[in-house]
Amino acid sequence: MNIYDIAVIPGDGIGKEVVPASLEVLNTVAEVHGGLKFNFTSYPWSCDYYLEHGKMMPDNGIQILQNYTAVFLGAVGDPQRVPDHVSLWGLLIKIRREFEQVINIRPAKYIKGIQSPLHSPNDFDLIVVRENSEGEYSEIGGRIHKGEDEVAIQGAVFTRKGTERAIRYGFKLAEQRKGRVTSATKSNGIVHSMPFWDDVFNEVRKDYPGIETSSCHIDALAAFFVTRPHTFDVIVASNLFGDILTDLGAAIMGSIGIAPAANININGKYPSMFEPVHGSAPDIVGKGIANPIGQIWTAKMMLDHLGEVEAGRKMLEVMESVIQDGIKTPDIGGTSSTTEVVQEICRRLKTL
Amino acid sequence: MNIYDIAVIPGDGIGKEVVPASLEVLNTVAEVHGGLKFNFTSYPWSCDYYLEHGKMMPDNGIQILQNYTAVFLGAVGDPQRVPDHVSLWGLLIKIRREFEQVINIRPAKYIKGIQSPLHSPNDFDLIVVRENSEGEYSEIGGRIHKGEDEVAIQGAVFTRKGTERAIRYGFKLAEQRKGRVTSATKSNGIVHSMPFWDDVFNEVRKDYPGIETSSCHIDALAAFFVTRPHTFDVIVASNLFGDILTDLGAAIMGSIGIAPAANININGKYPSMFEPVHGSAPDIVGKGIANPIGQIWTAKMMLDHLGEVEAGRKMLEVMESVIQDGIKTPDIGGTSSTTEVVQEICRRLKTL
Ligand SMILES: CC(C)[C@H](C(=O)O)[C@@H](O)C(=O)O
Ligand SMILES: CC(C)[C@H](C(=O)O)[C@@H](O)C(=O)O
Repeated sequence: MNIYDIAVIPGDGIGKEVVPASLEVLNTVAEVHGGLKFNFTSYPWSCDYYLEHGKMMPDNGIQILQNYTAVFLGAVGDPQRVPDHVSLWGLLIKIRREFEQVINIRPAKYIKGIQSPLHSPNDFDLIVVRENSEGEYSEIGGRIHKGEDEVAIQGAVFTRKGTERAIRYGFKLAEQRKGRVTSATKSNGIVHSMPFWDDVFNEVRKDYPGIETSSCHIDALAAFFVTRPHTFDVIVASNLFGDILTDLGAAIMGSIGIAPAANININGKYPSMFEPVHGSAPDIVGKGIANPIGQIWTAKMMLDHLGEVEAGRKMLEVMESVIQDGIKTPDIGGTSSTTEVVQEICRRLKTL
Repeated sequence: MNIYDIAVIPGDGIGKEVVPASLEVLNTVAEVHGGLKFNFTSYPWSCDYYLEHGKMMPDNGIQILQNYTAVFLGAVGDPQRVPDHVSLWGLLIKIRREFEQVINIRPAKYIKGIQSPLHSPNDFDLIVVRENSEGEYSEIGGRIHKGEDEVAIQGAVFTRKGTERAIRYGFKLAEQRKGRVTSATKSNGIVHSMPFWDDVFNEVRKDYPGIETSSCHIDALAAFFVTRPHTFDVIVASNLFGDILTDLGAAIMGSIGIAPAANININGKYPSMFEPVHGSAPDIVGKGIANPIGQIWTAKMMLDHLGEVEAGRKMLEVMESVIQDGIKTPDIGGTSSTTEVVQEICRRLKTL
């Protein structure tokens, strides 16, 4: 019996709806698959928690999480009540950093039964490998003077180690996929960090002669996600560029509500964290219509990471079949509730 | 008679094809409109020029251009022969900076007769106001150490003046349009420059109580360009975010080949520059199929800037009618050549 201790942080907004829903699916998979069990422990760390305690998680929050095999997170943020940089840097980004989750991976693929906003989505199936620890999200910089003289400086730090491990991760992934890597750059406009990124890319690719490579400026690449997403396999990108491309990836799939993500610790020292691309969506909280697919697909990525590939495969298969049969939430053109989608997924898992 | 002295820089690749084509259209407009005349002087500054002279333009290039009312540019770049950061910073970005063209404006709108890659493009009509002088494109930073210890630092500088004038320009534009301004931010991840950007936005908007405002993180905003572009009017964005959004704007219109742009000097000290969004497209050079629409629409923006609004209106009207009647290049689903499109536009202008 493989037993996994998972820390669960539903977080804010619809996180509190789709996370419990996904745990139900995970428990059902464990049950039907056999030889697999999850112990979930839930932590209420969120903007509510912040308003009560003045912090997003307790001081020993990181130590607490450290004992788990993985962290399963819903969504963080409630900008009407807590500024984003407080909530996100106090929880989501803090965990990414403290647990050295230096890689963020986010697939985007055409799913039958979901209307893509694209005219001809052409069966795309790509994955963005995002550098998740440095780059444009460095906390370096500040502001000086007031009023009309004020100047803000933002520093972006790209280390060889950070850049190389993200790019290398992309190449390894491509070896198991279609064998193509595209580097997101902007060395024509951003003249220190991006030429460096290009140099590392050009060096790393020498180690993978079997992989087809290309470099593309982020502006053109964003456009290509719209005009020809099917031509991509693995895209390696900096923290910011990866952020932008993955929301675009979600958009062309048809809904941000279905896009999954994983924050990977690659040195094995700390747990990895699994959180969907979507946010807390305060506008639809409490309506029972939050799309659970992003969180469930994220759970599938967690299963893959744990080595439970077969269980993950089953989950994805059932998830796709339920969508294709039209049992889906309004954001992807259906009329079902969160609960109805989840119940149907569980029902089908049991009949597998 | 209004006589305008225009410096023309065809530049590289298809620039050398679509610029002469557009001058023909401009001359025809002047002829049929009456009271309007252009003196065009062409300069061969380009990557070819660089390979011969070791620089993208002569040392007194800026002084030469300074005497003109406007600069009409094709495209710059030939990355197979000259690194982009050399060609672009030696010509395009140099002119933007030296002539204090601190604002870049780029419209994107649904054009009948062009197949958008979007399933339901819904008649969008938006314009991106891009800060064009600083921000993420600051030349601040560098690299230290070699090999596995190397670190690259990129500084982004946002001044109050630079940020405010771009945002204010957007508000003024919105007053003449649909009265809505969206600010592109990323203050949840980029914690010095972007909160500063937000603060300036929040201050400036107090001066425009009649304008409806919103702020949107760049990742979500990029996605919204795909899922609901018709909801936007004016978008104000930093240099990098504006760059990305305008390529996306071109993509949803159906082709990068049709998107126009203007680099505006707002203090009246130097000429403004008009250059389309597309690049030099080395892959289609010499085939006679380059889409002239981006350059022609850019010429229309130049007419507007010169105050020749009626002549500009005529040009746009004829341009749209020619596209609607299917006389268009292959990139937007037609079979016409560059020359055929231009001849038809000129013919129709003459019968107006
Ligand atoms: C070529 C490049 C430096 C330029 C930019 O990023 O400004 C281009 O993409 C543009 O948008 O005009
Ligand atoms: C909330 C925000 C800080 C975060 C990011 O930009 O990393 C989010 O957009 C994401 O992609 O996970």
